Amino acid sequence: MSGNIFGRLFQVVTFGESHGAAVGAVVDGMPGGIAVSEADIQKELDRRRPGQSKVTTARNESDQVEILSGVFEGKTTGTPIALLVRNKDQHSKDYSNIKDIFRPGHADYTYFAKYGIRDYRGGGRSSGRETIGRVAAGALAKKLLEHCGISIVGFAKAVGSVSGEKFEADFIEKNIVRAADPDKADCMIQEIMQATENHDSIGGVVECRIFNVPAGLGNPCFDKLDAELAKALMSIGGVKGVEIGDGFEAAAKQGSENNDNMSSEGFLSNHAGGILGGISNGNTIIVRCAVKPTPSISKVQKSVDLNNNEIDVEIHGRHDPCLVPRIVPVAEAMCALVIADFLRVSGRVGEKV
Amino acid sequence: MSGNIFGRLFQVVTFGESHGAAVGAVVDGMPGGIAVSEADIQKELDRRRPGQSKVTTARNESDQVEILSGVFEGKTTGTPIALLVRNKDQHSKDYSNIKDIFRPGHADYTYFAKYGIRDYRGGGRSSGRETIGRVAAGALAKKLLEHCGISIVGFAKAVGSVSGEKFEADFIEKNIVRAADPDKADCMIQEIMQATENHDSIGGVVECRIFNVPAGLGNPCFDKLDAELAKALMSIGGVKGVEIGDGFEAAAKQGSENNDNMSSEGFLSNHAGGILGGISNGNTIIVRCAVKPTPSISKVQKSVDLNNNEIDVEIHGRHDPCLVPRIVPVAEAMCALVIADFLRVSGRVGEKV
Amino acid sequence: MSGNIFGRLFQVVTFGESHGAAVGAVVDGMPGGIAVSEADIQKELDRRRPGQSKVTTARNESDQVEILSGVFEGKTTGTPIALLVRNKDQHSKDYSNIKDIFRPGHADYTYFAKYGIRDYRGGGRSSGRETIGRVAAGALAKKLLEHCGISIVGFAKAVGSVSGEKFEADFIEKNIVRAADPDKADCMIQEIMQATENHDSIGGVVECRIFNVPAGLGNPCFDKLDAELAKALMSIGGVKGVEIGDGFEAAAKQGSENNDNMSSEGFLSNHAGGILGGISNGNTIIVRCAVKPTPSISKVQKSVDLNNNEIDVEIHGRHDPCLVPRIVPVAEAMCALVIADFLRVSGRVGEKV
Amino acid sequence: MSGNIFGRLFQVVTFGESHGAAVGAVVDGMPGGIAVSEADIQKELDRRRPGQSKVTTARNESDQVEILSGVFEGKTTGTPIALLVRNKDQHSKDYSNIKDIFRPGHADYTYFAKYGIRDYRGGGRSSGRETIGRVAAGALAKKLLEHCGISIVGFAKAVGSVSGEKFEADFIEKNIVRAADPDKADCMIQEIMQATENHDSIGGVVECRIFNVPAGLGNPCFDKLDAELAKALMSIGGVKGVEIGDGFEAAAKQGSENNDNMSSEGFLSNHAGGILGGISNGNTIIVRCAVKPTPSISKVQKSVDLNNNEIDVEIHGRHDPCLVPRIVPVAEAMCALVIADFLRVSGRVGEKV
Repeated sequence: MSGNIFGRLFQVVTFGESHGAAVGAVVDGMPGGIAVSEADIQKELDRRRPGQSKVTTARNESDQVEILSGVFEGKTTGTPIALLVRNKDQHSKDYSNIKDIFRPGHADYTYFAKYGIRDYRGGGRSSGRETIGRVAAGALAKKLLEHCGISIVGFAKAVGSVSGEKFEADFIEKNIVRAADPDKADCMIQEIMQATENHDSIGGVVECRIFNVPAGLGNPCFDKLDAELAKALMSIGGVKGVEIGDGFEAAAKQGSENNDNMSSEGFLSNHAGGILGGISNGNTIIVRCAVKPTPSISKVQKSVDLNNNEIDVEIHGRHDPCLVPRIVPVAEAMCALVIADFLRVSGRVGEKV
Repeated sequence: MSGNIFGRLFQVVTFGESHGAAVGAVVDGMPGGIAVSEADIQKELDRRRPGQSKVTTARNESDQVEILSGVFEGKTTGTPIALLVRNKDQHSKDYSNIKDIFRPGHADYTYFAKYGIRDYRGGGRSSGRETIGRVAAGALAKKLLEHCGISIVGFAKAVGSVSGEKFEADFIEKNIVRAADPDKADCMIQEIMQATENHDSIGGVVECRIFNVPAGLGNPCFDKLDAELAKALMSIGGVKGVEIGDGFEAAAKQGSENNDNMSSEGFLSNHAGGILGGISNGNTIIVRCAVKPTPSISKVQKSVDLNNNEIDVEIHGRHDPCLVPRIVPVAEAMCALVIADFLRVSGRVGEKV
Repeated sequence: MSGNIFGRLFQVVTFGESHGAAVGAVVDGMPGGIAVSEADIQKELDRRRPGQSKVTTARNESDQVEILSGVFEGKTTGTPIALLVRNKDQHSKDYSNIKDIFRPGHADYTYFAKYGIRDYRGGGRSSGRETIGRVAAGALAKKLLEHCGISIVGFAKAVGSVSGEKFEADFIEKNIVRAADPDKADCMIQEIMQATENHDSIGGVVECRIFNVPAGLGNPCFDKLDAELAKALMSIGGVKGVEIGDGFEAAAKQGSENNDNMSSEGFLSNHAGGILGGISNGNTIIVRCAVKPTPSISKVQKSVDLNNNEIDVEIHGRHDPCLVPRIVPVAEAMCALVIADFLRVSGRVGEKV
Repeated sequence: MSGNIFGRLFQVVTFGESHGAAVGAVVDGMPGGIAVSEADIQKELDRRRPGQSKVTTARNESDQVEILSGVFEGKTTGTPIALLVRNKDQHSKDYSNIKDIFRPGHADYTYFAKYGIRDYRGGGRSSGRETIGRVAAGALAKKLLEHCGISIVGFAKAVGSVSGEKFEADFIEKNIVRAADPDKADCMIQEIMQATENHDSIGGVVECRIFNVPAGLGNPCFDKLDAELAKALMSIGGVKGVEIGDGFEAAAKQGSENNDNMSSEGFLSNHAGGILGGISNGNTIIVRCAVKPTPSISKVQKSVDLNNNEIDVEIHGRHDPCLVPRIVPVAEAMCALVIADFLRVSGRVGEKV
């Protein structure tokens, strides 16, 4: 309830700061008997790690994961699985000059207001490195989903003003921006490179599709499946909006356009994005999140320091010009955590498999 | 955890179905010593009640609330406050013909898939009448916020293709669509009347502004303030998207446009919508939600029955052609519940005042 | 988290004060499809109601329950079940003379310290009448347990210095003290009558046996099955101790005496009370709680008032001389809530039956 | 909710198995600004570590703790504090002969029933080594309590048939059994040595006294302070009973003996153990737990294997003949976690100090 624990029966706590000793997660609620390995987790971490392409930060971390508990002879035991990633390539000195300054667009000011103290090195806890724990835990959730025949595919739906239309799942991991539309990947990359040249950054939209979720998953009222997905995605740093199915477009439509009619074969359309009344309807679940442009830019910005003195600030260091490509695996992880939790809560998955 | 309880320290459970004996809520976590009356709650319920204007359903319910517990001699005692509203104007027979049919756009199919049974009368638990409990509980949360100097103003930001620009708070309750832009209210009403004439319905956007939230409220990581607001609003039936501040527009922007610079007087803009890193920054909190068009329309639609037989269905009865005007107080209530909960969790508000 | 909600997936909130309008409960997490009626609940309430015999208080309440929601055509729908009992026989005037006084042994002082206000009438929220909500909710939990073949039998294990040895389940509801040992019931009743004559009260021990719980139910670590039972029983007003199996006697024993050996037919003894490592072992679960003597006695006691003036106080009114007979159904209810919750959490019971 | 997370706002998750790579904990909810060091934690771990005296197991672990996150420049930052202890002296081979056998009195059978798999090495997750995480987290909780002027003293109240009467706090850490009564320590040690000679083990009672808790701490109804303490202590492996104040003795008393009268100076006695109606009354909180004899004994016992074949088993290895001395710091830790959590929940302690 202090903010770093997610889930009800499939629960995750993440820990760690950008420039501390380590980051990681503990997963409680994984059923016993599922085969998992460090390689399963490493594969996902490699998708989010820095330095993977020219459109991501140059910070060089291999982010090697160690499983500390909860797995015995290659299988989960039902007990907490602790996952540890040591921080390596920390340039803490990069931050000594902004020690007393609140960087615009960052959580520096708000963390200080809340806790009366902050680890200023690389954003401390508010850094994107916190998502290592999410992706590692999400990798375990994905193993559980896989066991149930459910899969998740995330991709860059838009970068800046460039929006993809086509959905070619196989193409996603073949392009550095993680677009699903082969006709738009280059434009998206171009959009990012342009921002970099301008000493600026650019936003975008990430979409996740969740396949093969059985009808009836979710909760009524407050803990609706879409409400939990919204919370999960909005909890990713930099996300400013979430929508399900047609989302904001539905607001401008009429009921006759928006309702998904049914035939004996199933739904005839999927405007709802696979969820009705907070419960899955058996269609593919479609969820998108708006990602703001990276706040760290090397243009001059106005800010204040701890003593409320006005100051001009330029942020240097190693930053992603666009968060989208590396948020894709994070968004998938959050979706996986939500679905895994509902599988446990609904009783579809018990304490062993 | 079964879905009908909201909050951590300021908690609400709602109960009741559209055509059952009663609806209501129990609030646990209201501090002792706050003056509240049934009139405080009734005022909010009157804003959401049916039959209040030509743009809302004709179902005629006075929705009189009774406080059953937790208030003694006009003040809260710190113990659970149970709120009861008896259902009165139930036309259950209206629904006998759709007893075995899954209405398009409704939760009929998904509730049946989940629970193996459903109360088909008026949507049962998935009916908008469930929000009576939310609004009643929210009225108590608002009393707590008032005590802390915080206020919430909700309004119709858009109806169909008509979007408001101006924000005149005093105007909102003076027009039946609850627009904040006097230049657009009539167009919005027109949009709704047009949909009604077409035997159709129309969507829209509701915005809430939360004034005077101190900097530092919220949590890091998973339970971010914006994440909880997103969950809270997405949990309202018919909401398909949520955004904070510039929201989805931020996705197309550059960092230099989107970052809110600071001066010694405070932030120089509010693209962030008052939240950075999941924690309030002292600016007005701005949150919007996309409301889908009412699924109940009297046009012919295709569906199936319990035995998967295809069937044509027309929904008759008393329905809102547009949910926006009546969702405004519900969205405010949800925002109030979120803020009240964070006030308790942060320790800013304790067990008594 | 403010104290009035119990459970994880089978959740209960109770509300109401001794002399307020009503008491009751809302149950969230009952699966859909279980036959329940008001009579099922009334039967349990009648076992705890006041005025049922010479060893209980003379307050005369019929405690009639109304189901407000969550049941449709005689079956649960999976949605919250609200249960309402109106207070009737309130003699609030009985309490006007102790309005400003902290009664010894009661929660008057501590409630005031916590909330800064108290409903002084009959103990307000801290009254035993709160347990009506528990017993009503427990009646629903018992229906779920019955569906799974599990049953609970509670009884008076001891009253004052008189301890029962035999366990004759059929005898329990045939004697007013709810003893399970026919040889001791009269002595127990005698013990209570003697206390009454002395203007005093007497304590005792309640035992519950839970039959037919499958092996493997429970959680490791913090949420052990015995830990949850201990919390559940200790949460009943007047309970000062809880033990499982041999309990405190085990502290004086050696491992060779205390370990339950196993044969291919099962355990050869049940010192553990059916729980090992926080998880059921298939044996009958045995749990006992120590009940303190009723604090309301008509002997002169020393206390203070709101202004810390010393004062002599005699408590008059209608009080149980011994809480044991009426706590029996409450203790059963709490055990039922714990087991029902674990059945849901473990996935043995899902969202429908 | 899967069992390994404790608390509401001051939350702890523990992880790790007896013979896995590591054990540890993550603490979420520690306010920002409190000075803590590894030495603060190590001091407590040294009190529970094996091999500290002739009355404890000979397993030789130094149990060195590393703080991985949440502390910056010697102060807490308000973010999760991850604590890691690598396992060193693992003799996993000791357990190969009991790989397929359910040891009497242990959780082997129940874990297998629950998860379908078990880490048989040294009890795996059900091992007492899990309590390292508790003690480490509890050390942080104690720092918070210290900040609020609250302290906890635990001691051996009884070993086997030997019960202490005196309470000399300074004496406790000066004797290997952690008795508070100098007249009884030797007898207690004798009791343990006798059990060891008999190839047997012995139980006992641990008491904790919590000093200087302000009146008004706790919750009503289900989450009473005593209920949470009961859960916390009962969740320690080997604990079979918990009592508050006079506990089970209160069951045999009359109201006039058991009620604590008040004067203008405070309570005139402390039969209640500092808690009334689930809320602290300002008196010292007194709680005791019954500890069963260690189940691992080298006498021949009857059991079954995974295939339900009957088998005679003798447990060899390095075991504590009596759990009491090493449970003392664990019990203190659990009490500290409960109090720290209530301090946060009540708002007495916020997000920073």
